[in-house]
Amino acid sequence: MSAPFTATVLSLYPEAFPGVLGVSLIGRALAQKKWQLETLDIRRFSHHKHASVDDTPAGGGPGMVLRADVAAAAIDAVALNGRPLIYLSPRGKPLTQAMVRDYAAGPGLVLFCGRFEGLDERVIAARKMEEVSVGDFVLAGGEVAAQALIEACVRLLPGVLGAAESAHEESFEDGLLEYPHYTRPRVWEGREIPPVLLSGDHGAVAQWRRAEAERITRARRPDLLGKTSKESET
Amino acid sequence: MSAPFTATVLSLYPEAFPGVLGVSLIGRALAQKKWQLETLDIRRFSHHKHASVDDTPAGGGPGMVLRADVAAAAIDAVALNGRPLIYLSPRGKPLTQAMVRDYAAGPGLVLFCGRFEGLDERVIAARKMEEVSVGDFVLAGGEVAAQALIEACVRLLPGVLGAAESAHEESFEDGLLEYPHYTRPRVWEGREIPPVLLSGDHGAVAQWRRAEAERITRARRPDLLGKTSKESET
Repeated sequence: MSAPFTATVLSLYPEAFPGVLGVSLIGRALAQKKWQLETLDIRRFSHHKHASVDDTPAGGGPGMVLRADVAAAAIDAVALNGRPLIYLSPRGKPLTQAMVRDYAAGPGLVLFCGRFEGLDERVIAARKMEEVSVGDFVLAGGEVAAQALIEACVRLLPGVLGAAESAHEESFEDGLLEYPHYTRPRVWEGREIPPVLLSGDHGAVAQWRRAEAERITRARRPDLLGKTSKESET
Repeated sequence: MSAPFTATVLSLYPEAFPGVLGVSLIGRALAQKKWQLETLDIRRFSHHKHASVDDTPAGGGPGMVLRADVAAAAIDAVALNGRPLIYLSPRGKPLTQAMVRDYAAGPGLVLFCGRFEGLDERVIAARKMEEVSVGDFVLAGGEVAAQALIEACVRLLPGVLGAAESAHEESFEDGLLEYPHYTRPRVWEGREIPPVLLSGDHGAVAQWRRAEAERITRARRPDLLGKTSKESET
């Protein structure tokens, strides 16, 4: 039997893990060893005084830069075993559900979490780090981005979502945003569940949901529509 | 003196907080009461047997849907005090640094974290929830997205980043991705710091950094360039 999906996280704050990854389905799957989480404290790889890991930016300016030698020593201590080496950064490739599916189908992830002003560019190039962004905003560090990426992957692993849950028919799985959901009560604050959903006509329900997904995507994210045919799996 | 920036999180897993928000600068600022974090357990607002909060989707299909009555009871227990009520959802408006700046300038955030297949659409409409997405991927729940949004806001609050850090000259602050960073040693694994950064010529350094930011943005995210002039603050 092969090793389960393994996420190795390099961070200056390993105590931030498992954090949100320790609760609910993802936490249960971790306890059941359906996936593995390893953290490595980058500071342990400093050979400088006071375990210093950063220094002032060449060319001046505010902030501190994470040193290439320290970062490389931490990275080189990890056996990649075919896993991508990812640097979480707002300069990276925007994460998509298609990328998540690819990562989840592989052996795992090695995730480097930056802090401070950034990481010395030379180590990104020398270690061929894949730069990935979870969005067009700036975080205090890569840790929460790493947790988002890990959670998105782990929920797609076999046996993580229970029989009552599903990874299908969700936003982006077919290139569209998801249709609206309703449940009991039938009338709430004077608002009714759309009658077609209570009709028992499975074909009509499927047709309504598809039309709603298309309507919502067109209204909110027309940029996604061009990708529909390419990414469609149905 | 007015109350500090306050994030109120409605979640089925309040134990996921503060999680990553408890470490580093963000955690220190929380301990120093430069911002406040409150969590509310949605399950506490169920009046159904076994504190049930979800039910099967109208129209059939996999998964469970979070009930409108339970969600509304939890929401109605929170004093908004002028704060936006946000539902973290992949169907939402994609979060940008401009939105983060607006939120950070306000009194705080009220964040509703979904789980299961989704939240009954009627409560989103009835409570005028603002749907926000941290990216085009699907998470197991809104908690990690809420943490990302809170972290992005809190780092912009006065006094959170120390004198040695800076929220300026970063990705998206001027509509561009950030230029590359370097620090000591001058030569690492045969790779040198670009000589201009060691020249002491501040004008040349600024020019080089601007050109690199533009080059990297053009290569990686040409979609951002159209927004540069609009969002520029310089």
